[in-house]
Amino acid sequence: MIVKDRIEILENLKIAATARYIPERVVSNNELSTIMDTSDEWIYPRTGIHNRHVVTDENTSDLATHVAQRLLEKSGWSADELDFIIVSTMSPDSLSPHTAAIVQGNIKASKAFAFDLNAACSGFVYGLSAASALLSSGRYRKGMFIGAEVLSKLVDWKDRTVSVLFGDGAGGVLLEQTNESVGLIAEELQSYGEMGNAILTGRFANQNAFSGEISPLDPYFHQDGRSVYGFATREVPKIMNKALDKAGLAADDIDLYLAHQANERIIRSMAKNFGQDLAKFPTNMAEYGNTSAGSTAILLDELVESGQVHPGMKIAFVGFGGGLAIGVQIWQL
Amino acid sequence: MIVKDRIEILENLKIAATARYIPERVVSNNELSTIMDTSDEWIYPRTGIHNRHVVTDENTSDLATHVAQRLLEKSGWSADELDFIIVSTMSPDSLSPHTAAIVQGNIKASKAFAFDLNAACSGFVYGLSAASALLSSGRYRKGMFIGAEVLSKLVDWKDRTVSVLFGDGAGGVLLEQTNESVGLIAEELQSYGEMGNAILTGRFANQNAFSGEISPLDPYFHQDGRSVYGFATREVPKIMNKALDKAGLAADDIDLYLAHQANERIIRSMAKNFGQDLAKFPTNMAEYGNTSAGSTAILLDELVESGQVHPGMKIAFVGFGGGLAIGVQIWQL
Repeated sequence: MIVKDRIEILENLKIAATARYIPERVVSNNELSTIMDTSDEWIYPRTGIHNRHVVTDENTSDLATHVAQRLLEKSGWSADELDFIIVSTMSPDSLSPHTAAIVQGNIKASKAFAFDLNAACSGFVYGLSAASALLSSGRYRKGMFIGAEVLSKLVDWKDRTVSVLFGDGAGGVLLEQTNESVGLIAEELQSYGEMGNAILTGRFANQNAFSGEISPLDPYFHQDGRSVYGFATREVPKIMNKALDKAGLAADDIDLYLAHQANERIIRSMAKNFGQDLAKFPTNMAEYGNTSAGSTAILLDELVESGQVHPGMKIAFVGFGGGLAIGVQIWQL
Repeated sequence: MIVKDRIEILENLKIAATARYIPERVVSNNELSTIMDTSDEWIYPRTGIHNRHVVTDENTSDLATHVAQRLLEKSGWSADELDFIIVSTMSPDSLSPHTAAIVQGNIKASKAFAFDLNAACSGFVYGLSAASALLSSGRYRKGMFIGAEVLSKLVDWKDRTVSVLFGDGAGGVLLEQTNESVGLIAEELQSYGEMGNAILTGRFANQNAFSGEISPLDPYFHQDGRSVYGFATREVPKIMNKALDKAGLAADDIDLYLAHQANERIIRSMAKNFGQDLAKFPTNMAEYGNTSAGSTAILLDELVESGQVHPGMKIAFVGFGGGLAIGVQIWQL
């Protein structure tokens, strides 16, 4: 039985810095209403989204590189200190080079290895899991983890059912081994591949000179919003409870829940389900829409900047979405 | 100073099973010569490749699912025992769902989480690194790791400079925590993002309704073969030496080098560089071509099946390619 005022840290890790980068161009619901049959009155009550930011001349690696540079500036770390760079993304610049390698080259992290990780909208939590494990294994001391998306390139801007939901943006953290009593308390990750067709994006069909298929690519999002909503509101609480059980904590013990910013109604449902004040579930999708692997990292950095997240707090990171997949990590900051 | 007959294991891990799956359809150099201006006489001396296998009606998740099923059959593990499934691929079925989630659903791994990892042709070593770390952190006990590629869909079959090089295939391993004196001895991973443009595939440009660019996608490989050859023959030995130093081993102490199967001339250069008999660098690209993240896993399973790889051996896994990136892991089996 774990006594609550003396939490057992599973892996001693420090979040040494947070950063975000959002492209400048804002597209409001009102602007969208000029290019498709929609309106702020329709979008906002259903999603909690007023605006999203979209790239004009940047791609995913550009957003991630800005985050990487800001992380180094804030921490005072030199790029040479980094052992690895992981970028979670479902919207890479390319399949080769992978986005993390582009970032590694851009910031001249001369000793780092780099890879991309794709767990869609759970990419922040899954990437944090992989990054933590590489440090906790003892192999590495300092790592950079970024969630970065340019979803605007995977959206059919003629399809009003999905184009209103997504935005572009990136956020990240620097992680290091520490002797302090901070770090990962517990995680619970679960995939639901049997429901994978509920969120489809970036299809690479098996076309080649020896196969029949001739439509090689469909980059665009196709989403069964009703299924995803039902999935998230039904399954996320189960995974959250498992994570809390592993941590030996109750829902009340968590200071803030930083959840993937897909839809405000999902967030409200989660807060209600846990008997928690909605103020413990901060949101920013009103300004950014759903930025998939970027969303939680962006939110984290905003809250660190405003002082709402600070050392001593217990934070639950909650990811859910494409795969389908869910992930919860509970941290002592 | 580590005494060589008593190797220090960094992380005690057991490769509990290996498996592979290759699509049936064989495309020989001679067949290629009927659809483009090439020949076996041109291709083989430059690459070591006679044949490659390509999918007709399968995609990456299908190959990976076959591997997953064979891994479970061979090991006797039930799908429910799996804590996670990682698929390394640069040729996923889609950006969502990620390929590992599709596999997780297909084999009904009801307790597993799943993510895709992209480190291109170093995907086997990088994926093995992430999978090992998740186990060695102590969080998880049993994991499945698969490298799977359908590169034939990313090849312009009118471009004879790249279409002759690649093939489709998948291989994988089951990994578990163990108390036995086997496992990971050392790893050395390094990215070279500044050279990323030497291998380009699957470009997602930043097109959207608010940006100028209008060519959203270029799925096809573009490769600067000369640069990649120079990179691999020059840099892989440096990384190999660092891994051997970490392991406290000499090149002679390694029983077999299982290297990414890009090009037989690169393999020969590596063997020569290390003063090792070419027999310690087995190849199979003659039959499969370059299958990126699949290649080393396929080779490993073939050698386990033939008895050439067995418990007690020290194996160096060597990955290199897109990113650019290099990775070496040294294992005591």
